[in-house]
Amino acid sequence: MPAVKVLNKQWIYAQRPSGRVGSEHYQLREVEVDSELAHNEVLIKAEYISVDPYMRIQQAERNSFDVPHPLGAVQGAGAVARVIASKSDQFKEGDWVLSYSGWQLFAKCHANDLNKIDAAAAPVTTALGVLGMPGRTAWFGIMEAGRPKPGEVVVVVVVVVVSGAAGAVGSLVVQFAKKAGCRVYGIAGGASKCEFLTSKLGLDGAIDYRKFNDADSLSAEIQKLTHGVDIYFDNVGGMITDAIIPQLKLRGRVIICGQISQYDGGIDKPNMGPRFLQHLLFQRATIQGILARDYTHRMNEMLEIVSPWVRNKEIVFEETIVEGFDKLPGALNSLFEGANVGKLLVSV
Amino acid sequence: MPAVKVLNKQWIYAQRPSGRVGSEHYQLREVEVDSELAHNEVLIKAEYISVDPYMRIQQAERNSFDVPHPLGAVQGAGAVARVIASKSDQFKEGDWVLSYSGWQLFAKCHANDLNKIDAAAAPVTTALGVLGMPGRTAWFGIMEAGRPKPGEVVVVVVVVVVSGAAGAVGSLVVQFAKKAGCRVYGIAGGASKCEFLTSKLGLDGAIDYRKFNDADSLSAEIQKLTHGVDIYFDNVGGMITDAIIPQLKLRGRVIICGQISQYDGGIDKPNMGPRFLQHLLFQRATIQGILARDYTHRMNEMLEIVSPWVRNKEIVFEETIVEGFDKLPGALNSLFEGANVGKLLVSV
Repeated sequence: MPAVKVLNKQWIYAQRPSGRVGSEHYQLREVEVDSELAHNEVLIKAEYISVDPYMRIQQAERNSFDVPHPLGAVQGAGAVARVIASKSDQFKEGDWVLSYSGWQLFAKCHANDLNKIDAAAAPVTTALGVLGMPGRTAWFGIMEAGRPKPGEVVVVVVVVVVSGAAGAVGSLVVQFAKKAGCRVYGIAGGASKCEFLTSKLGLDGAIDYRKFNDADSLSAEIQKLTHGVDIYFDNVGGMITDAIIPQLKLRGRVIICGQISQYDGGIDKPNMGPRFLQHLLFQRATIQGILARDYTHRMNEMLEIVSPWVRNKEIVFEETIVEGFDKLPGALNSLFEGANVGKLLVSV
Repeated sequence: MPAVKVLNKQWIYAQRPSGRVGSEHYQLREVEVDSELAHNEVLIKAEYISVDPYMRIQQAERNSFDVPHPLGAVQGAGAVARVIASKSDQFKEGDWVLSYSGWQLFAKCHANDLNKIDAAAAPVTTALGVLGMPGRTAWFGIMEAGRPKPGEVVVVVVVVVVSGAAGAVGSLVVQFAKKAGCRVYGIAGGASKCEFLTSKLGLDGAIDYRKFNDADSLSAEIQKLTHGVDIYFDNVGGMITDAIIPQLKLRGRVIICGQISQYDGGIDKPNMGPRFLQHLLFQRATIQGILARDYTHRMNEMLEIVSPWVRNKEIVFEETIVEGFDKLPGALNSLFEGANVGKLLVSV
C-alpha cells in the first residue's frame, strides 16, 4: 500500500487535577501521521480505547507504581485496534491487535508491542476486559493472593458510587470466587445493583452500603450476613474497608487491588481513617497489594481457564461502551461516579 | 514430703483500664494453698514472673486474639518457677520449670502444662526472654514472615518511649536480621539508646525518633538513611509506622508483631491516622500479623539455632529485673514508659 497521510487525534494530558479529573485537564491535539513505516513498524487505528481507574493514580504528583504520568504527552491507555499498514511479518492489514497506544486514533507501533487478538474466539473488546488486564487482575488477585478454599467467605466491593469502575474487576472476582467454592458477598451502591449481584451473578448476598452512615453500622451488617470474612478483595478503600477489616477471621486475607476512594486527592495528601493494624495482629491476617503487571507473564495460565468460560457463557461480563473519541476525558471522570456497570470502553 | 500449707499471694485483675494501666486495676489477694496433690499435679513456687505488652491488649473490652481477660481472676503471665512438691514422674522437687501460672507466688499445675528448664544450659530467665516467647516471636517473625535476604534493608523499632518493652523482641529481631545478612536500622528514643543499637548490637544505623515532630520529617530521614525499606518489623504502630510505610520498596514486607502505641485505649476505640493502603498497591507490599502462639509447636526449630548463639554469647540479650511481688502492676505500667531495656521481669 502506498504511503498515506491521515489526521490523527490525540488527547494530551495537560494539567494535574487536584480533585476529580475533568476535560479541563486534557487538550485535544490534531496531528498528521503518515504510513511510511520502518522495518517491524505497524500503523494501527484504534477502535476501542480503555478508561481505567489506575489512570487517576498516575495523574497524582507523587510516584506510585510508576513515576507520574508526564504532562504534555498522549494519555496512556490500552486499545483494541486494527492494523492499517504493516512492515512486520507478524501482522497484516486488517488484523485486530491489543496495544498500549493511549488516547489517540492512530499510532505507529513496534510489532513487539502489539498482541494479536483472535476475533473469532471472543468479542474483540474482551481483550480490554475479561480476557485482558481487568480479567488478569481479578484472576490472579483472587486465586493467587486470595488463595480461596471451598466454603470460605469472600467479600468484594463490586459497584460503588465513587468507583463504578470497580465493576470491571470486582464483577469477575466474585464469579471466580464462586467457582472456587466460596460463599461470596458483594457490596454495592443501590438496590438494583445488589439485585444484579444476587440474581445475575449468583452471589450469596449483597449489601447496599448506601444504607449505612458509618463504618460501624456497615460492619455490624457485614458480621450479621457473613459471620466473618476470610477474603476481602478491596478496590475501593475508605469507609467500606474500615467496616470489613474488623470482621476478618483468623488468617484472613485482604487483597489491595485499588483504592478508588482515595484517588481524588488522597494519593498526594492522605485522608485520615481509623488505625486498624491491631486487627491484623489479632487474626494474624495478611494484606497484600497486587497489580495486573505482576502477572503479565502468566497471562496464558489465566486464559486457558477463563477463555472457555467466556466461550461457554459461564461468566457474565458486562461492558459499557461510550461512543466518540471526544468522550474520553468525560468517560474517565464517570468511572468515579458509578454510572457504569462492568468494563467501560470508548469506541472511536 | 508431708502436706504443708503456704500463704499464696495473687494479683487479681479487677478493673479494666481506659488509658494507662496502674495498680488501681489490680487487687492483692492472699489465700492459703496446701501441698496435697492429685496424680500428675505439681506445686510450684514462682521465682521470676513476666510482664509483657500483650497483657494490655487482653485488658481491652473487645475480643482481640483472645476473649478479654476475665475480671476477678489472677492476671495471666508466664513464670519461671521451682517445683515444691510433685506427684508427676516428669518433675521432682527443685526442678526449674516454665509455667503460665500468672501473677501469683504458688500454683498447683498439671504436669502437662509445665516445661522443664535446663538451668545448666542457660540462665533460667532466658526461658521468658531470648529462649522463650519473645525469642520465638522475634525469630519466626523476622525469618518466616519477613523472609530476609542478604543485603536487604530491615528497619525495626527497638526502643521507644511509649514501648520500652519492644526491646525484648525488637533487640532480638535486629540481631537475627544482621545474621541473615541484612542492612539493619533501629528506631529508638534518645541518643543513648541509639548508641546502644549501633555500638553494642552492631546495627548499620539508628534514628532517634524524638528528634522528629511528625511522620513526614521522620519519613524523610528514614529515606535518607536507608534509601528504602524491604522489611519493617512493627511492634509500635502509630506515627513511626506512618513514616515507614511510604518508604517501602517493591515487594516490601511489614510484620505486625505489636501495636503498643495503640494499647492505651486505641484497641477499644481506634485512633485516627493517615490512610496508607495505596502504598501497598504501589509497591505490591505485604502486611502480616503474627503472634508467638502461631509458632509454639515449632519452638525446637528456633532453639536449635538460637541456643548455641546464647551459649557462645553471639547474641546480646538485656534483662531488666525488678525485685518484689508487689511491683508487678507498676512493672506492667512501666513497659509503656520506656524505662527498661530488653526483657522486663519481676523476681518474687
